[in-house]
Amino acid sequence: MGNDNQIRIGVISCTNIVRKVSRAINLAPNATLAAIATTSSIEEAKSFATSNNFPPTAKIHSSIESLVEDPDVDAVYFPIPTSLHVEWAVRAAEKGKHILVDKPVALNVSEFDQIVSACELYCVQFMDGTQWLHNPRTDKIKAFISDPLSFGQIQTVHSCFTFAANENFLKNDIRVKPGLDGLGALGDAGWYTIQATLLANNFKLPKTVTALPGPVLNDAGIVLSCGALLNWEEGVTATIYCSFLANLTMEITAIGTKGTLRVHDFVIPFQETEASYTTSTRRCLSEHKVMTELPQESCMVIEFARLVGEIKNRGAKPDWFWLSISRKTQLLVDAVKESIDNNLKPVLLSDW
Amino acid sequence: MGNDNQIRIGVISCTNIVRKVSRAINLAPNATLAAIATTSSIEEAKSFATSNNFPPTAKIHSSIESLVEDPDVDAVYFPIPTSLHVEWAVRAAEKGKHILVDKPVALNVSEFDQIVSACELYCVQFMDGTQWLHNPRTDKIKAFISDPLSFGQIQTVHSCFTFAANENFLKNDIRVKPGLDGLGALGDAGWYTIQATLLANNFKLPKTVTALPGPVLNDAGIVLSCGALLNWEEGVTATIYCSFLANLTMEITAIGTKGTLRVHDFVIPFQETEASYTTSTRRCLSEHKVMTELPQESCMVIEFARLVGEIKNRGAKPDWFWLSISRKTQLLVDAVKESIDNNLKPVLLSDW
Repeated sequence: MGNDNQIRIGVISCTNIVRKVSRAINLAPNATLAAIATTSSIEEAKSFATSNNFPPTAKIHSSIESLVEDPDVDAVYFPIPTSLHVEWAVRAAEKGKHILVDKPVALNVSEFDQIVSACELYCVQFMDGTQWLHNPRTDKIKAFISDPLSFGQIQTVHSCFTFAANENFLKNDIRVKPGLDGLGALGDAGWYTIQATLLANNFKLPKTVTALPGPVLNDAGIVLSCGALLNWEEGVTATIYCSFLANLTMEITAIGTKGTLRVHDFVIPFQETEASYTTSTRRCLSEHKVMTELPQESCMVIEFARLVGEIKNRGAKPDWFWLSISRKTQLLVDAVKESIDNNLKPVLLSDW
Repeated sequence: MGNDNQIRIGVISCTNIVRKVSRAINLAPNATLAAIATTSSIEEAKSFATSNNFPPTAKIHSSIESLVEDPDVDAVYFPIPTSLHVEWAVRAAEKGKHILVDKPVALNVSEFDQIVSACELYCVQFMDGTQWLHNPRTDKIKAFISDPLSFGQIQTVHSCFTFAANENFLKNDIRVKPGLDGLGALGDAGWYTIQATLLANNFKLPKTVTALPGPVLNDAGIVLSCGALLNWEEGVTATIYCSFLANLTMEITAIGTKGTLRVHDFVIPFQETEASYTTSTRRCLSEHKVMTELPQESCMVIEFARLVGEIKNRGAKPDWFWLSISRKTQLLVDAVKESIDNNLKPVLLSDW
């Protein structure tokens, strides 16, 4: 049951990711599952709500439209195909709903900026649904990378996220369809790797982005695997690699002048209750474990609901930090895509 | 003391690497330290021989020339600057000496091929001094990567070798001097990373090599840090990164369709007596430890002496496997250098 201090969140559809995020909302002390909008049948949504422990008060909406107009909903989680994000995020913002939008947020940054405008105009909180950024481990990683004594200055970072999709996924998943999630592996797996390289560079944008030779596209031109190089000043570089065609691998290797960070499961930790990473200085390696009382998706919901609560209950302004790093990620996704489309030509970020 | 079955190896100079390799020769049951050639004073060489447990029979030569003419020497280890390799390797081969040559073997592949010709003409065994290839762990890694059931088909491999050189190194080491080891970090650290990507691809040469934007050169134009992309058919890629400017890091991450391999200390294992690596399939990670009774540099000497023994005692032909992968590595080092020199233009390997 909700209480007045809980942010009332509405979700859309009955997919696996909604199952996961619904559980996360249930676990978050400052949020409650207020409603679900079905994209198919009311019966399915009812059954989904029951089997996923929605409070009995949770409403079942027969359309997204009805959900975003519900006065008893503070915020909406959007796990819908990317091509539908702009329309629905903007419509939700117009109704004063705070928005949690799955990555990739948009098909390109100009679409993204329509969401930015709506959030600014209607003073609503934005967050993209990248869960690993909210794992307590991520703060520890940031602290290590920011420490001039143990890590020094960043020199290079390599991040990859790959998984071997099955035949059905490669034929039918929305992530391989031009009309739905047209950014393919780049918008999906690549989004995480780009955020990891941004994090390692304290969210400073690189100067240039160059797609690496050898991207694999499907017949519809959707990226199934690709790599890219990001360049900052003074020889600081990052390489990313994302793929639907290779065994599950989720790496960050960040190398500074004095220290090295290694993470092997940065996107989804191998264990839900603890997450590890390795730091080293010269030949001295240290393993670190970070306990996570709540799964990282709950940490995300808690932070999102906290920010919404500040606005709703204390008249605060939205916090644009999450929007800012999300938009930077979109910029870089766009740049990799542009470089792929332009025969691997480097894209200067100052052009944006 | 040597015996008839031991291959008599001569070494040159009194540097740290010679100290290490001399110990390795002492530990190898099929090799003996037969001689040392000084590049400075006889006294220093005598003292070096004593403190490094050379047998009392070991000869002290006042020049490399005298060493390569010594009839009681079967093979010579060359830890001299790269710019001197061709001349001395060829002169040693002419005298029928088998040669163990430190990496990078030559300043370019046409120099390398003078060594190849001499080895073929005089029927002498060649090996480059890359020690990690002889660590028992490397065979285990190869077996995992070659296993279609657990690893599948290679999709991508990332390898980096970096260390933070001090000010003195960056000013005075032969590896930053155009006249001596003009290939800089690429010929030194990069050599290892390129061999790692070749190993992951069963020593098949890539189709193209492209240097990545952002190489760092010193005032004399020597590479201090750089990266490159290697492309095989069907979207198989590798990225390498080598640097004298970043914390010690020695990674291989190889991702196949079914499995992933991770090695964190591939060049010089953190421990001399055991070496570890990690394999994973989906979310199931396994740590493996390989015991190494002898240090990897001894394994190298044992293999080299075994091959020399086959020729010396059984009339066998030289084994060209090590020469072949060494030459491929030189080809790829050259290609990265050419790409850096040509504004990062891709280099087609079929051009060679």
